[in-house]
Amino acid sequence: MATTREELTAKIQRIKREKKLTWKKIAAAIGKGSPIYYTAALHGQMKLSDGEAKKAGKVLGLTENEILLLQEIPYRGSLPPGPPTDPLIYRFYELVQVYGTTWKSLIQEEFGDGIMSAIDFDMQMERQPDPKGDRVKLTMTGKFLSYRQY
Amino acid sequence: MATTREELTAKIQRIKREKKLTWKKIAAAIGKGSPIYYTAALHGQMKLSDGEAKKAGKVLGLTENEILLLQEIPYRGSLPPGPPTDPLIYRFYELVQVYGTTWKSLIQEEFGDGIMSAIDFDMQMERQPDPKGDRVKLTMTGKFLSYRQY
Amino acid sequence: MATTREELTAKIQRIKREKKLTWKKIAAAIGKGSPIYYTAALHGQMKLSDGEAKKAGKVLGLTENEILLLQEIPYRGSLPPGPPTDPLIYRFYELVQVYGTTWKSLIQEEFGDGIMSAIDFDMQMERQPDPKGDRVKLTMTGKFLSYRQY
Amino acid sequence: MATTREELTAKIQRIKREKKLTWKKIAAAIGKGSPIYYTAALHGQMKLSDGEAKKAGKVLGLTENEILLLQEIPYRGSLPPGPPTDPLIYRFYELVQVYGTTWKSLIQEEFGDGIMSAIDFDMQMERQPDPKGDRVKLTMTGKFLSYRQY
Amino acid sequence: MATTREELTAKIQRIKREKKLTWKKIAAAIGKGSPIYYTAALHGQMKLSDGEAKKAGKVLGLTENEILLLQEIPYRGSLPPGPPTDPLIYRFYELVQVYGTTWKSLIQEEFGDGIMSAIDFDMQMERQPDPKGDRVKLTMTGKFLSYRQY
Amino acid sequence: MATTREELTAKIQRIKREKKLTWKKIAAAIGKGSPIYYTAALHGQMKLSDGEAKKAGKVLGLTENEILLLQEIPYRGSLPPGPPTDPLIYRFYELVQVYGTTWKSLIQEEFGDGIMSAIDFDMQMERQPDPKGDRVKLTMTGKFLSYRQY
Amino acid sequence: MATTREELTAKIQRIKREKKLTWKKIAAAIGKGSPIYYTAALHGQMKLSDGEAKKAGKVLGLTENEILLLQEIPYRGSLPPGPPTDPLIYRFYELVQVYGTTWKSLIQEEFGDGIMSAIDFDMQMERQPDPKGDRVKLTMTGKFLSYRQY
Amino acid sequence: MATTREELTAKIQRIKREKKLTWKKIAAAIGKGSPIYYTAALHGQMKLSDGEAKKAGKVLGLTENEILLLQEIPYRGSLPPGPPTDPLIYRFYELVQVYGTTWKSLIQEEFGDGIMSAIDFDMQMERQPDPKGDRVKLTMTGKFLSYRQY
Amino acid sequence: MATTREELTAKIQRIKREKKLTWKKIAAAIGKGSPIYYTAALHGQMKLSDGEAKKAGKVLGLTENEILLLQEIPYRGSLPPGPPTDPLIYRFYELVQVYGTTWKSLIQEEFGDGIMSAIDFDMQMERQPDPKGDRVKLTMTGKFLSYRQY
Amino acid sequence: MATTREELTAKIQRIKREKKLTWKKIAAAIGKGSPIYYTAALHGQMKLSDGEAKKAGKVLGLTENEILLLQEIPYRGSLPPGPPTDPLIYRFYELVQVYGTTWKSLIQEEFGDGIMSAIDFDMQMERQPDPKGDRVKLTMTGKFLSYRQY
Repeated sequence: MATTREELTAKIQRIKREKKLTWKKIAAAIGKGSPIYYTAALHGQMKLSDGEAKKAGKVLGLTENEILLLQEIPYRGSLPPGPPTDPLIYRFYELVQVYGTTWKSLIQEEFGDGIMSAIDFDMQMERQPDPKGDRVKLTMTGKFLSYRQY
Repeated sequence: MATTREELTAKIQRIKREKKLTWKKIAAAIGKGSPIYYTAALHGQMKLSDGEAKKAGKVLGLTENEILLLQEIPYRGSLPPGPPTDPLIYRFYELVQVYGTTWKSLIQEEFGDGIMSAIDFDMQMERQPDPKGDRVKLTMTGKFLSYRQY
Repeated sequence: MATTREELTAKIQRIKREKKLTWKKIAAAIGKGSPIYYTAALHGQMKLSDGEAKKAGKVLGLTENEILLLQEIPYRGSLPPGPPTDPLIYRFYELVQVYGTTWKSLIQEEFGDGIMSAIDFDMQMERQPDPKGDRVKLTMTGKFLSYRQY
Repeated sequence: MATTREELTAKIQRIKREKKLTWKKIAAAIGKGSPIYYTAALHGQMKLSDGEAKKAGKVLGLTENEILLLQEIPYRGSLPPGPPTDPLIYRFYELVQVYGTTWKSLIQEEFGDGIMSAIDFDMQMERQPDPKGDRVKLTMTGKFLSYRQY
Repeated sequence: MATTREELTAKIQRIKREKKLTWKKIAAAIGKGSPIYYTAALHGQMKLSDGEAKKAGKVLGLTENEILLLQEIPYRGSLPPGPPTDPLIYRFYELVQVYGTTWKSLIQEEFGDGIMSAIDFDMQMERQPDPKGDRVKLTMTGKFLSYRQY
Repeated sequence: MATTREELTAKIQRIKREKKLTWKKIAAAIGKGSPIYYTAALHGQMKLSDGEAKKAGKVLGLTENEILLLQEIPYRGSLPPGPPTDPLIYRFYELVQVYGTTWKSLIQEEFGDGIMSAIDFDMQMERQPDPKGDRVKLTMTGKFLSYRQY
Repeated sequence: MATTREELTAKIQRIKREKKLTWKKIAAAIGKGSPIYYTAALHGQMKLSDGEAKKAGKVLGLTENEILLLQEIPYRGSLPPGPPTDPLIYRFYELVQVYGTTWKSLIQEEFGDGIMSAIDFDMQMERQPDPKGDRVKLTMTGKFLSYRQY
Repeated sequence: MATTREELTAKIQRIKREKKLTWKKIAAAIGKGSPIYYTAALHGQMKLSDGEAKKAGKVLGLTENEILLLQEIPYRGSLPPGPPTDPLIYRFYELVQVYGTTWKSLIQEEFGDGIMSAIDFDMQMERQPDPKGDRVKLTMTGKFLSYRQY
Repeated sequence: MATTREELTAKIQRIKREKKLTWKKIAAAIGKGSPIYYTAALHGQMKLSDGEAKKAGKVLGLTENEILLLQEIPYRGSLPPGPPTDPLIYRFYELVQVYGTTWKSLIQEEFGDGIMSAIDFDMQMERQPDPKGDRVKLTMTGKFLSYRQY
Repeated sequence: MATTREELTAKIQRIKREKKLTWKKIAAAIGKGSPIYYTAALHGQMKLSDGEAKKAGKVLGLTENEILLLQEIPYRGSLPPGPPTDPLIYRFYELVQVYGTTWKSLIQEEFGDGIMSAIDFDMQMERQPDPKGDRVKLTMTGKFLSYRQY
C-alpha cells in the first residue's frame, strides 16, 4: 500500500500500464475538470476533491487510504534537483532561460510592477494541425498580481 | 562602445531610460515581427536581420559596430545560474517544477515519442480582461519533433 | 554615474555614510509609506513613484538619470547565490529550513490549498521592550491565494 | 516501528490521515503551548516534554519507543537541499531573497550590531479577514542578541 | 518484478551477465534497427515497438509487464547529477567543454541560426583499424533546425 | 592589448565582426589544417604553431605579444560552469546524458576496458543534404586507450 | 579610495605590506580589545568604535570616509562559496564535518535544547609549547541559548 | 545486524534511547579517554581499540561483528552535503565563514607558513558558569605543521 | 546475493572483517599484479581477469554470479559528489587544488601540448622510513599523450 | 602594479611570454630548491624567502612591492570552483575519484589511522623514456600523521 505521494504516483503508473489506460481516459473518469489538472493530481502535484478521488480510486483500483491521500495537498515539485535531464521537459526550462528577461520586461511594461500568478493559473494543450508538421499549442492564463506598495 | 552582447543589452536599457522609450515602441520601429521576438533580440537572445538592426540602431542611436553585433547569433541564456531570484521569472520556473512531468505525459500520449520544439517555436502575450483582475495570457506553439528510430 | 541598480545601491550607501544619514531619515524624506518599503527600494528591490524618486534624489543628491532608475522595476534578489553568509540574514533562512513544512501544514489546514502571497504583502518592524532583553517584532500579512481548480 | 525522526514524521502523517485528525486537534490534545510549536515537533523539528509526548502518543497511538523519540532533540532542517520547490514554502524563501539586506539594514540601525535570535524566538499565525480576500498574518518576535566585543 | 525503468535496466544487466550475452547479440535478436538505438532502449533511454519489446522479452526472459514497460517512453537521463565520473563517459563531456563554442560558431556559420537536433538524430559506431592503435569512429547526423523568426 | 586568452578571444570576435570575416576564411588563411582545429584555437582551446599564429596575426591584425599568446597552451574549457544554457551547445550535453551509458557499454564491449581518447582525437563537420531538411554530420575518431593492468 | 568593505580590506593588506606592519602591531595601536576581534574587523568582519577606527586610520593612513566605513556593520562572510580551498582554513571546516554531530550530542546532553551562540562569543589564540612541536591553542566561549518553548 | 558504520550509528542511537543511557555514561564505560573522542567514535567518526570496542559492545549489547566494525577506520564526514541545516552545528560553520581569514592571518603571523593539524588534535568541552547565562567553553589544540620547502 | 558492484564492494568489506583478512593478503591470493590494482578492483573501480576473479571468489567465498561481476568493467567513481569529506582522501584533492596549475605548466613545458594519461597509468605505494616520522611514498607513471593536431 | 597575488601571477605569465623564458629557467635563477616548489610560488601557491623573491624579481623585472608580495603566504587554491575543466588537470582529479577509497584502505592498512600530509610533503617530476611513448613520472612523499587518540 502506498503511504506517500511518490509511492502512490508510482503505483498509479504501474496500474495504468497493466490496465492499458491512458491519462485522458482516467481524467475523463474523474470528472469534468481539465485533463491537465487531473493528470497533475495523479502525478502528485494537485489535490482532488472527495468525489473526484473516489472516482479515480474506482478506475484505478486504489485502497481507501490511497483515496484519502489523493485529497491531501502535496509537497509540490515533480523533478529531481538541477536542470531537468529529460529532453521534453528541458525544452520548457530552456524557454525560461532564453525568454525570462523578455517576459519580465513585456509583462511589467503592460501591467506595471507585479507578477503573473502560478497559483490562480490555468492552461490548455491542443494539437494544431500544420502541413509542415503538427504543432503543440499551449495556452496559459494567470492572474496579474500587483506588488502592494505599503 | 559596447563590444559584447551583455554590454549592448545594458547600453540599450540605459538609452531606453533616457529617451523614455518602451519596448513596444522600439519593437514597432524595428519591423512587423512580434514584439516578443524583437524584445528578446534587444535582450541579447535573438538576432535581427540587417534591415531590422539598422532600424533598431536608428531609434536607439547605436554605432555601426553595435548594429552588426545585433545581427550576430548570441550565446543564449539570459539568467544568472541557479533558480531565478526575480519573482516574475521564478513563477515560470515553478510551472516547470510543478507541471514538468504532466506535460511530458500528456504531450507524448497525444503525439508519441518526441518533444515540443523550443526552436521552431513562437509565442504571443495578451491582456485578458477579467472582472476579478486582468489576466496575462500566453499562447505558445512549438513544432512537435518525433524521436527518430534508426 | 550609476547606470545599473547595483551601482546605484552602492552609491546610495556611500552617500549615506558621507552625509551621516540613516535609512529612517531618508525614508521619512521620501514619503509617508513604510520605511521598510522605501529602504527595500533604496536597496534595489522595489520601485519608487515619480514623486518619491525625486525626493530621494534630492536628499541623496542623485542625477536625473539615477532618479529615473529608481522608478524602474528592478530584477529582484538582494543576495549572492547559496545560503546567506551574513548571520542576521541567515537566521531568517534558518527559520524557513526549520519551520517550512510546519507553515505549509498549518496555513493550508486553515485556508485550503494555496499560498500566502509575497507580492500582495506588507510587513512592519517594531522594537518590543523586554526586561530580559528587547525583542525584534516582525508582523507580516500576505493575501491568501487559492489554487485555481480548472 | 519508527526508529528515526523521519520515519516517525511519516508515520504520524499516515495516522493523521487515517484518523481524519487535524494538526490543531492534535496540538490541543498535547498541551497548552502554541500549535505552531507542537506542529513543528510533530514534523521532527522541535522536542516535546515527557508529558506532552505521552499525550501525543495517546492521541496518535504511538509505541513507547516512539514516545521517547519525540522527546529527543532532532537534527533540524525540514527541507531537501536547494531552494524549496513547494510554492507555499518558496514564497518565504523569496522574502529572504528580496528583503534580506533591508532587514539587516533596518534591524541593525535600530538595535546596533547583532542579530534577531531564531532560538529565543516565537511566532503566531492568524487569519486576518479582508473584503478583498483574507490574509495570512504572521507575527514573530526574536530576542535581539548583540555581538560581543571582546 | 521490475516496476520502474531503473529496476528493469538493472535486471537486464543481471540477466545478461548470467546468460553471458552481449549487447550486440541482444540487439540482433530484437530487430534490424541500430544496435546503438536498441542498447539505449535496454539502458532505459529509448522505447521499443511492441514487436521489438516482445523479442527482447524472449531473449532475456522478461515478464509481460516488463515487456510493456520497455514500450513506454522513459524519463531520459542516464547519469547521476554533476560531471560524469566514469572516464569513458567523461571524455565526451570534456569534448563539449572544449569544443562547445567552436561547434556553435561553425555550425551556425554554415547553416544560420538554429541547432543540430538531438531528437531527429542517429549515430553509428565503428572500429577503425590503425597501425598506431585502433580508433573508435563515431558518426552522427542530426537535422538542422532553424530558429523560427516570428 | 589582450594579455589573457579570454581577452584575445573577445578581441578576435570583435575584429572578425568589423572586417566581416568568417571562421572558415580565417582558418583558410592560417594553414592547411582542419577549420575545426583552427577555430578552436581562435576560441582559446588549442594552440597554433609559430607559422600559423603569424598568419592568424596577419589576417586579424594582432600584436606580436598576441601572436605569442596564440602559441601558448591554453587552460581549456570554453563554457561557464553548469550545463550549457545555449541551445545548440546544450544538445551535445543532452547526447551525453542520454547516450552516456550506451556508449560505455558498446565501446567497451568492442574494445575491452579503456576509453576513447579526447586528446588523440580528430573530427569533421559536413552538411548532408536531405530533402526533409539538411543534416549536420559530425564524424569523430579517437584512439582507443586500454586500461593498463599492472 | 575604497568605497566598499572588500576594497578597504584589500587596501589595508597593501598598506600593511608596504609599511611592514603586523596584525598584532596594528591591533595594539587600535586599542585594548582582543587582537582577534580587531584583526577580524580589519578583514571586514567586525565593526570598530569611533575611537578605534580613528586609531586604525592613523596607523594605516586611511581617509576619513574609510574611517567611517570601518565603523559600519559589514555584510559578514570572508570566504568564497563552497568548502574553503586554503588548507589552513579547510582544517576548521573539516573539524565541523568530523565533529559536528558529536558537538551537537554532547552540548545538548549537557545544556538541553539550544545552541552555543556565535554572536555572544569570544575566542583566544595561544602558542602552546610542546617538545614534539608547538601547538596552536584556541579557546572559545559562547553563551548557551535555550530554545524558547512557546 | 548493522553492516555499515551508518547502520551501526543508527542502532547505537536506538539502543541508547531504549536503555535511557547518556553519551557520557557510555563513554565512561568504554575507557579513560576523552568523552568527545568516544562519542565521535560512536557517531562513526573515530575508531576504538579492541578493548574499548568490547566494552562499548557490552554496555550497548552489540554483536561480535559490530564490535569489529567499531575498530575499523571509518570514512569520515558526519554531515549531509552543503552547509549544515541544524542550528547548533551551523553556528560552527558560521564561525569558519566569519573568522576563517582572521585565523589564517593570525596563526601564520605567529607560526609561519603552515597549518593547525586537525589530525594531531584534541579538544575539551566545559560548562563555564556565568550569571548572565552559562557558556559553552571549547578548548582545542592542534600541532602546528610547517609547509616543507623542498 | 550482490547484484550491483556497490553491493559487492559492501559484501567484500563485511567478509574481510569477519575473516580478519587484509587487502594485501587478499591481493596476494588473487595474483602477481599490483596490490593497488587488485584493491581498486575489490573497491569496484577495476576489473579482474577470469582467473583472478575466481581466486578472489575463493578467498572471499563469493557466488558464481559475483565472480562474473568482478570481471565486468565498472562504472568508475568511488566517492560521493562534492569534495571528499574523508581527511585522508581530501588531502589528495587538496594537492590538485594547490598544484594543478603548476603540474600543467611544468608537464606541458617538458612534453609539449598533451596530458599525462590516467588510463595507461600505474602507481606504487611504499613506506619510506624517516627518523622524524615515516613517510608515505607514492610513485606514479602515466604515458604522455600528445594532442593530435589535425 | 600588481597588488593581489592573482594579478601578480597574471603579470608573471605575461612577462615570461615577452621574455621567452621558461619556468625551469626562472626557477634556476631563483635558487637551489625544487622547480616544482618555485613554479608553485610563481603561480601564487607557495611563498618565497626574501632572497629568493629578490632573485625572482630581478629575472622578471618586478617592483619592490611585488617582491614583498611573493614573500607573503597566499590564500591557496589555484583552480576555479567545480571539477577542473582543463584535461591535464582533470586527469589528476579523476585519479582521486577512481583511487580515493583504495588509497585510504591501503595507506591506513599499512600505517594505522591517520593521513598522508599535504603540508610536510614534497614531489618530483621526471621524464621516463619508454619505447611505446615517454611517460610522466611523479614521485611524492608525505609524512604520515597519526590521528591523536585523546
